[in-house]
Amino acid sequence: MDGEISKLTIEEKSSCQILTPQTTVKLLDSVDVFLFDCDGVIWKGDVLIDGVSETLDTLRAMGKKLVFVTNNSTKSRKQYAKKFRSLGISVSEDEIFSSSFAAAMYLKVNEFPKEKKVYVIGEEGILEELELAGFTGLGGPEDGKKTVQLKANYLFEHDENVGAVIVGLDQYINFYKLQYGTLCIRENPGCLFIATNRDAVGHLTDLQEWPGAGCMVAAICGTTQKEPIVVGKPSTFLMDFLLQKFNVPTSRMCMVGDRLDTDILFGQNAGCRTLLVISGVTKVSDLVDPSNHILPEYLTNTLSDVVRLLHD
Amino acid sequence: MDGEISKLTIEEKSSCQILTPQTTVKLLDSVDVFLFDCDGVIWKGDVLIDGVSETLDTLRAMGKKLVFVTNNSTKSRKQYAKKFRSLGISVSEDEIFSSSFAAAMYLKVNEFPKEKKVYVIGEEGILEELELAGFTGLGGPEDGKKTVQLKANYLFEHDENVGAVIVGLDQYINFYKLQYGTLCIRENPGCLFIATNRDAVGHLTDLQEWPGAGCMVAAICGTTQKEPIVVGKPSTFLMDFLLQKFNVPTSRMCMVGDRLDTDILFGQNAGCRTLLVISGVTKVSDLVDPSNHILPEYLTNTLSDVVRLLHD
Repeated sequence: MDGEISKLTIEEKSSCQILTPQTTVKLLDSVDVFLFDCDGVIWKGDVLIDGVSETLDTLRAMGKKLVFVTNNSTKSRKQYAKKFRSLGISVSEDEIFSSSFAAAMYLKVNEFPKEKKVYVIGEEGILEELELAGFTGLGGPEDGKKTVQLKANYLFEHDENVGAVIVGLDQYINFYKLQYGTLCIRENPGCLFIATNRDAVGHLTDLQEWPGAGCMVAAICGTTQKEPIVVGKPSTFLMDFLLQKFNVPTSRMCMVGDRLDTDILFGQNAGCRTLLVISGVTKVSDLVDPSNHILPEYLTNTLSDVVRLLHD
Repeated sequence: MDGEISKLTIEEKSSCQILTPQTTVKLLDSVDVFLFDCDGVIWKGDVLIDGVSETLDTLRAMGKKLVFVTNNSTKSRKQYAKKFRSLGISVSEDEIFSSSFAAAMYLKVNEFPKEKKVYVIGEEGILEELELAGFTGLGGPEDGKKTVQLKANYLFEHDENVGAVIVGLDQYINFYKLQYGTLCIRENPGCLFIATNRDAVGHLTDLQEWPGAGCMVAAICGTTQKEPIVVGKPSTFLMDFLLQKFNVPTSRMCMVGDRLDTDILFGQNAGCRTLLVISGVTKVSDLVDPSNHILPEYLTNTLSDVVRLLHD
């Protein structure tokens, strides 16, 4: 075991199992479905992490189901599949679970009436997934340039047939959209308020973090004084959906991620196995920090260890 | 006692004192400073409420100090004085306590260094008050048209000399401002996060409500995961400030307002007398609704009753 991980104390090592040839066999034997967080596990920004492609091929050859989970709602599954291809990995749309897809699936699973409309504070990905699922979306990028006029006798009108407002990351957020979404939630009887996720910030560029969907979602909570239904991580909606799809108990799924408070906690809450890779944001020093109380079941440097160790 | 108020049950009447010639004398004898909420008490939108002008003149003639309190941060005290004049009331800037002024006073009282800068997510009123108090404001309306480019190697830069971010109602809210404010609060050591107020919505036009400062403040809470210092109602910063200014105990102040959960609760929390007028958003039916647990000390139809009843 190389690098940072070797610095763990015996006590820390005993609380989570570091991948060795033996524990890797144990992990692979106990898991039918691998759930992967993308950024920090599969890629970093626009660069593929070493050995990922071969690892995914080997896992597939072993009959494992693979699911790629991302809270970023700006892209649809189709757009994500394109990103995978551009990095040289072949992933089918069916294997991708983005929070944009999750939002559309939430409506489908809950039999949202097709004649109702959905207002979107968010980007193209959500609108695409809504359309694919047969729903009518309004708003999104198109409303990014609209303005309001705060003058006497001006009435801001909204569509009374909107039965759900979906809020995700929106770099074109404005007062028009905030008012539109607020009016739908406050005035349309039974209107749902769905959040793709509540991440505070995200690495939208390689050099820094930017406001995440948690920013836009909080803004709508602030005006409506209502709490949203969250469909991305760490909500367990994904698990309920996968249970139906694969008919595999969560105890035979493994969540692989680079964040303790989202990925690992999410996996633990759902009753999955968990594997932390330190190729992303979490460092070993974060893991052993006294303030951290989230320990993964398994720990390794990078995803490719899962296959490399089998041949050691 | 006319209209709606006469429908109160004996029990409800006994919990709050309805203004009569007798209780009016008692109220006036016990109060040196009247604090008025504006919208719903003094005016409705751009229309003065009947009898307000004469009532204010009479109260002044009786030696009462008057303070006009508004959570709306889009205007400065100077701009509010202009609005009062346009409605035919002479009010000096000194008598106005807007949340824009409160934000500047908070910095002054807390000896915010003059060489530091203040980033504003909000409108002209805040920038004007900052300038009058001798502080350097950035942002505000000027940043309303700025955009960001989410591409590789792009670094969004912010001024490291920003020592406070003030967030108020901002109809030109955008991703640029959200990122700027977030970076200052997250990355500039000790940077203050000040909210003018957290009102969910407000009557920005006469026909409907719009997202209030609570929307923009929540958005910044969402990205920074920090809670703001609130300087407008229901924070007691105003009271501390008035105590210093007038040297009058809060028990000899009376908060006059039309909202139970902001004005009346605010007055009660600060130890003031409270008078609810039903010329604004609260109806008698709201007051007696089983879900309401906030009862004012005094109750009347409209502000002019305070003087009219003296002559009855």
